[in-house]
Amino acid sequence: MSYKELKEECYEANMQLNALGLVIYTFGNVSAFDKSHGVFAIKPSGVPYEVLKPLDIVILDLENKVVEGKMRPSSDTKTHAFLYNQWEGIGGIAHTHATYSVAWAQAQKDIPIFGTTHADHLTEDIPCAPPMKDEHIQGDYEHMTGQQIIDCFSDKGLDYKEVEMVLLGNHGPFTWAKDAAKAVYNSKVLEEVARMAFLTLQINPDAPRLKEALIKKHYERKHGKDAYYGQS
Amino acid sequence: MSYKELKEECYEANMQLNALGLVIYTFGNVSAFDKSHGVFAIKPSGVPYEVLKPLDIVILDLENKVVEGKMRPSSDTKTHAFLYNQWEGIGGIAHTHATYSVAWAQAQKDIPIFGTTHADHLTEDIPCAPPMKDEHIQGDYEHMTGQQIIDCFSDKGLDYKEVEMVLLGNHGPFTWAKDAAKAVYNSKVLEEVARMAFLTLQINPDAPRLKEALIKKHYERKHGKDAYYGQS
Amino acid sequence: MSYKELKEECYEANMQLNALGLVIYTFGNVSAFDKSHGVFAIKPSGVPYEVLKPLDIVILDLENKVVEGKMRPSSDTKTHAFLYNQWEGIGGIAHTHATYSVAWAQAQKDIPIFGTTHADHLTEDIPCAPPMKDEHIQGDYEHMTGQQIIDCFSDKGLDYKEVEMVLLGNHGPFTWAKDAAKAVYNSKVLEEVARMAFLTLQINPDAPRLKEALIKKHYERKHGKDAYYGQS
Amino acid sequence: MSYKELKEECYEANMQLNALGLVIYTFGNVSAFDKSHGVFAIKPSGVPYEVLKPLDIVILDLENKVVEGKMRPSSDTKTHAFLYNQWEGIGGIAHTHATYSVAWAQAQKDIPIFGTTHADHLTEDIPCAPPMKDEHIQGDYEHMTGQQIIDCFSDKGLDYKEVEMVLLGNHGPFTWAKDAAKAVYNSKVLEEVARMAFLTLQINPDAPRLKEALIKKHYERKHGKDAYYGQS
Repeated sequence: MSYKELKEECYEANMQLNALGLVIYTFGNVSAFDKSHGVFAIKPSGVPYEVLKPLDIVILDLENKVVEGKMRPSSDTKTHAFLYNQWEGIGGIAHTHATYSVAWAQAQKDIPIFGTTHADHLTEDIPCAPPMKDEHIQGDYEHMTGQQIIDCFSDKGLDYKEVEMVLLGNHGPFTWAKDAAKAVYNSKVLEEVARMAFLTLQINPDAPRLKEALIKKHYERKHGKDAYYGQS
Repeated sequence: MSYKELKEECYEANMQLNALGLVIYTFGNVSAFDKSHGVFAIKPSGVPYEVLKPLDIVILDLENKVVEGKMRPSSDTKTHAFLYNQWEGIGGIAHTHATYSVAWAQAQKDIPIFGTTHADHLTEDIPCAPPMKDEHIQGDYEHMTGQQIIDCFSDKGLDYKEVEMVLLGNHGPFTWAKDAAKAVYNSKVLEEVARMAFLTLQINPDAPRLKEALIKKHYERKHGKDAYYGQS
Repeated sequence: MSYKELKEECYEANMQLNALGLVIYTFGNVSAFDKSHGVFAIKPSGVPYEVLKPLDIVILDLENKVVEGKMRPSSDTKTHAFLYNQWEGIGGIAHTHATYSVAWAQAQKDIPIFGTTHADHLTEDIPCAPPMKDEHIQGDYEHMTGQQIIDCFSDKGLDYKEVEMVLLGNHGPFTWAKDAAKAVYNSKVLEEVARMAFLTLQINPDAPRLKEALIKKHYERKHGKDAYYGQS
Repeated sequence: MSYKELKEECYEANMQLNALGLVIYTFGNVSAFDKSHGVFAIKPSGVPYEVLKPLDIVILDLENKVVEGKMRPSSDTKTHAFLYNQWEGIGGIAHTHATYSVAWAQAQKDIPIFGTTHADHLTEDIPCAPPMKDEHIQGDYEHMTGQQIIDCFSDKGLDYKEVEMVLLGNHGPFTWAKDAAKAVYNSKVLEEVARMAFLTLQINPDAPRLKEALIKKHYERKHGKDAYYGQS
């Protein structure tokens, strides 16, 4: 059987989404990209995690044509394909309806960088893309959802290699990374940062943004060229 | 033994209520309707989930007469019967005191449609029926509770086939569906949507309602005639 | 060995406190009263639930003298004894530092009756006793804590047989009932009602009190002479 | 093998951090100090709890030189060393990014003493150190983080033997105690007190500070010379 490893990677990442409390029922999906073959694996649409099996995972090419698999792929598949096409080097994408992330998306607010938990992962506010235009919603919706993300990053001057997460206004979060497991990690971190930021503003509506020196220090010690966090 | 399958369906759905964290102690009940026999199965009153057995489930006809079972049925039984009588085609009803759903009911507010999680399930704000009139409370209370739900749908021009949930002001949620398991699913979705809407308003008290194009798109892709969500 | 059953009852109720998520570490205690012998069983002070055994439970008389047991009884023992002395017919008392109950106690606010979950258990706002006078704190503190509860019920004209719970201002909840297990049940219900009331006011700061007819109906159908809730 | 017990103590305390829900992924670290040998044990940097083993624990002296262990120690190691150097008698330090503690730190607010849960552990508001100066952040950051804590205690006139916890503005909590297990206990208590104080202010923004007589009484009955809490 082909793409066995890719399916396993995709399956494990989807199951993590569930284990980490980021989804109820089928409210999420993860894909994994295999650059050498130009294909990606994604969760089948509407299949509960309790019955999901590695063999159910669907393989598609970047034109959204099914290469392997009998089930219908996630309804969000075209958004995944769009991002793999646009953004060189990403190997996994996760989408959830996690509670606090969705609340910020529904509030149509960027998540301000309030602390080092945030700065350990990115130096910018977590962007919230505005809701899509009606003609894009009525057209090729999931494709245009990808476009909406790209446009948001372009408008705000953000680098997708540093900011590996976005909120889609009124919808919810997409996250990405070098592989599917790391994309899921980013979804969990985003949810926790979203919760901390919510509570921070409840305690102090005038809470200040984290100062630049701390943003730089925390990001650099984990991701800079002289990083000293973790085992290298 | 008769109605074995109906009792099992009802039992399993009640146990799900507990497993999903929607109830503590005996704060909820689910019924399952068997149209061909004109009877429904419901949880016995005040029996903890830890000791509940399929054989404890009570079978009643639509006149609220016990057809089978030794235990007293749920105190909310007449509300269930009323809805089965009025609404052709529903096969299961769930009632809980889930925390966020109750909080909105106690606040006497409809839950605004703020995002696609909501629109994936219904296109309207989740209605909150006003508290009942004193003469209805002092009369045939549980029967009139059903009437209160019907009146609320009539006043607001809602379709029970699309909006499968309601908040009873100062009380809590009732949900329904084609079967008991799906009614419980609707209770869980309602609780999560209630929580998301609460958090959204805390972050942004002026959060706008979801735009019509997105409401239509998300509802249609799951429930429209050209739906492409799930495995058909 | 004497008082074996009483110790078991007390032990089981204390373990429930932990299982229900009402305490962390040793932040709570339950006692069970044996009227025929005029003694009560209580948790030893500061012993973690993971190592607590039925044999560790301490037996005291209503003068607070240890009748059986090698360990030092809960530091709140005198409050328990005071209430057993004053209130004929109660058989169990629970004290916790459960989060939402404590938050209302620290806010020094009665918990308003907002819904039927509350009215299923009592017809009054859940009282919050004011903080004690300095001379009572500096005197026989735990004894006077019992007095503070009695005075609060007297001032507000409440009946301890109906209102089986109180918040001690700046401290936390005490609950009681016919036995220890039911006292723990009341602690759990109080915590859930406290959480619902908190959320209700966040959603609608002007949320109205539950109307009298609904208070009466829900309380009576569970506790009135013609009650029809549960299996009789 | 040397320092086997110290490594075990440190390992167990780190695993508790995870079991108590105070960290996700690698967002925390605990150290344990061996005064007789002048060394401390600390978690290796960036190692997930699921794969952490006692043998992975790193041993360092108070000059931050690795005495034993092959892995790179926690990136916060110098903060731990600084505190062991400055504060005679502490035997364990814990650092987390627990949600409510971080929220208060991000809000840059001391946690007011609102109730007896707080006073059972300390008599002061839980201090929040201001964010560090840019030159300290850009210099020897983790060393200066220790200095920031010391300065905060000096400015506020606090005693580290009584107040065993601090919030670092925009970062998160550090706690300490006679040993590593107790330091973790303090992290859990801090998180719970932080959550209670948050809820208290949501219910009553004008909630008063706990009165002095109650602060004294509760602290003394647990920690005073005539303490009667626990088994002595």
